[in-house]
Amino acid sequence: MTWLPEPIPALLAAGPGGSQNVPLAMLVVFGSARLLAEICERLKQPALVGEILAGAIIGPSVLGWIAPNQVLTAFSELGVMFLLFRVGLEVKSSELMRVGPTAMLVAMLGVVAPFAAGILIMRAWGAPSVEAFFTGAAMVATSIGITAELLKTQGLLAHRASRIILAAAVIDDVLGLLVLAVVSSLAKGSVNFLELAIAAGLAIGFTLILAKWGSRTMVRVVPRVEKQLRVGEKQFNVAMVLLFALSLLAMRAGVAAIVGAFMAGMALSDTANEHVHDLATGVAELLVPFFLAGIGMQMDLTVFANPETLILSGVILLAAVLSKLVGCGLGAINLGWRNSLRVGFGMVPRGEVGLVVAQLGFGIGVISKSVYGVVVFMAVATTILAPPLLRLSFRGASAAAPAPAAQSNR
Amino acid sequence: MTWLPEPIPALLAAGPGGSQNVPLAMLVVFGSARLLAEICERLKQPALVGEILAGAIIGPSVLGWIAPNQVLTAFSELGVMFLLFRVGLEVKSSELMRVGPTAMLVAMLGVVAPFAAGILIMRAWGAPSVEAFFTGAAMVATSIGITAELLKTQGLLAHRASRIILAAAVIDDVLGLLVLAVVSSLAKGSVNFLELAIAAGLAIGFTLILAKWGSRTMVRVVPRVEKQLRVGEKQFNVAMVLLFALSLLAMRAGVAAIVGAFMAGMALSDTANEHVHDLATGVAELLVPFFLAGIGMQMDLTVFANPETLILSGVILLAAVLSKLVGCGLGAINLGWRNSLRVGFGMVPRGEVGLVVAQLGFGIGVISKSVYGVVVFMAVATTILAPPLLRLSFRGASAAAPAPAAQSNR
Repeated sequence: MTWLPEPIPALLAAGPGGSQNVPLAMLVVFGSARLLAEICERLKQPALVGEILAGAIIGPSVLGWIAPNQVLTAFSELGVMFLLFRVGLEVKSSELMRVGPTAMLVAMLGVVAPFAAGILIMRAWGAPSVEAFFTGAAMVATSIGITAELLKTQGLLAHRASRIILAAAVIDDVLGLLVLAVVSSLAKGSVNFLELAIAAGLAIGFTLILAKWGSRTMVRVVPRVEKQLRVGEKQFNVAMVLLFALSLLAMRAGVAAIVGAFMAGMALSDTANEHVHDLATGVAELLVPFFLAGIGMQMDLTVFANPETLILSGVILLAAVLSKLVGCGLGAINLGWRNSLRVGFGMVPRGEVGLVVAQLGFGIGVISKSVYGVVVFMAVATTILAPPLLRLSFRGASAAAPAPAAQSNR
Repeated sequence: MTWLPEPIPALLAAGPGGSQNVPLAMLVVFGSARLLAEICERLKQPALVGEILAGAIIGPSVLGWIAPNQVLTAFSELGVMFLLFRVGLEVKSSELMRVGPTAMLVAMLGVVAPFAAGILIMRAWGAPSVEAFFTGAAMVATSIGITAELLKTQGLLAHRASRIILAAAVIDDVLGLLVLAVVSSLAKGSVNFLELAIAAGLAIGFTLILAKWGSRTMVRVVPRVEKQLRVGEKQFNVAMVLLFALSLLAMRAGVAAIVGAFMAGMALSDTANEHVHDLATGVAELLVPFFLAGIGMQMDLTVFANPETLILSGVILLAAVLSKLVGCGLGAINLGWRNSLRVGFGMVPRGEVGLVVAQLGFGIGVISKSVYGVVVFMAVATTILAPPLLRLSFRGASAAAPAPAAQSNR
């Protein structure tokens, strides 16, 4: 699955034979992302906000130095795969399973609320019902990548609220897929419930089986395979094959490749040594800026040219933030208002997932150009707004503190 | 600069919106390369030969599972950049400068001999003179990537012969550029000696200035910059910006991007800590298989269909091996026949550089389709043949032994 549109001719698309100038692309994207990250850090904002803004600035809507293309998309996809893989390495599936019921409630309420809000707003605005459904669907899915990166860089992965966010984001991905499937069928005119049930079964089965048996299988399998190998970084190579295989399987099962990457990391969380962590960190450190800047590059400022679209953008953005905050927060209310707030903010970023749905709808012609711009704005703006709020909500939470659940359940 | 041709539709080029299935591409290329590497290692052959063969097997000429395209090319270019960067990290420029005179002789004789051999053979075969010149030019340039990877994985970088090979390969890149410039001018009908002199001056200046002052500048600059940074892997980020900036500068100065990457590594050899090594290793470990398999993918077995081309292929291959062996070996003869042999074998692989020249000549129409196939065969076959011979010639040389020069010069 890709969330960046077709190549647009731009500075970095130039080159003999249509080839990329790879060092230039690396320098511009990586350099500007890190620069803006440093600036944001000094302004006491999360660094990843800077990297997203860097993409917006160097992208088509401001400087136009660079535009999304196949190569940048591939770097970005690989970057977010390694991001989730690394986060998975630090999470035990048993800990996610333990928060399962709460996460399920968080995910479900966090799907229903924005979906309903999106449909109601668009219908009130006078949009056709299919367009309203698609807009609602684009508001459903949380970007697991953004939240995971933020929790990881802030050292908050061990926190109980963080685990609920991660588990809920995985469930949300499955639910989002189903919502999208239903909405796409509606656009075609008929819904095949058998197909939907099979898709749901596949996606849920893939996720559950891996979460339940992945780690204990890998603890046995990886050392044996590793002992047979002789070339290069043996354990890393095994990890990479698992990472790509599960990402691919995830796509085949109908969920996002990055859910597979997360599962691969989690399956290896008991096996991978420090060196494998370091090697994966190298790839992530290099390529995650491409994921973040890639989201920013999608930002389209032309929606602000029209006052009517501007107002709609504001309303949709507000609804996107509040619906997740209230829906997901309500799902986690039994953990106290503070954790409930954290979970709510953690689920707000729509990032690349919202963009995919918008592009899909625009591609099949059920979303107009202006609504497409509104949805893209919502996806990028929630991604930029949520991290500072999430960080604020975690203020005072010790970065290295073990999760309360882990202590109390012993 | 790219050495892989335009996208060819194939399994991995498929996907919605012309996008790549990134996990599938990663799994197929990385997995098959590592698998064949393991097999080669068991057959007591260098692992990288397996990775090149993997590319040939999954590529268009055998299974056709995958074909070169923009994304694979970008991965491959990034992979070889990190390969050279890591090798540079382990080499001190003072050590290369010390072997400078010998390396210069090795490089020059190693340029003249294959160039002359190529021209003579092609003229005897009845080819037009421009085609003969281009074939000669394609036989000139040594692939620094292949030799560097082999020396690194075998732990032989500290060896004196290894340093001569590395230094000679860098000089060879500059000389190869000049030969190509002359030959290209000939194809256009006129040679502008002023332009050539400027190009030569730029390329030599870039290389010498970096080799002489790079490291001592970075020892002062990097810690200061690093102290100013607050986000992520600070030293690694500085290293990456230097890597991409010097690769880009190298291209602007007319030498290959990977020469810039090598210079960046060398400039950081006194500064970079173990952690930066590990992070760069992660990227290299992931992407170098794309470089190696990418060379194999170019292999075109159709040259063997015609007996006449088959014979020419054999003659050109033999000449390509012997001319470098004799030319470069002669240049290093004062180090004893054993080191002379090592240097000779070390300079044999033409790899990606020979492919670039062949594609350039084919692109402007001065090389026929059959001769193109012959040159590609030569480039890939020298790359597969040389590593086992080089490894053999180093047998008995202690992997960790310090170079004799380093001891005697103290």
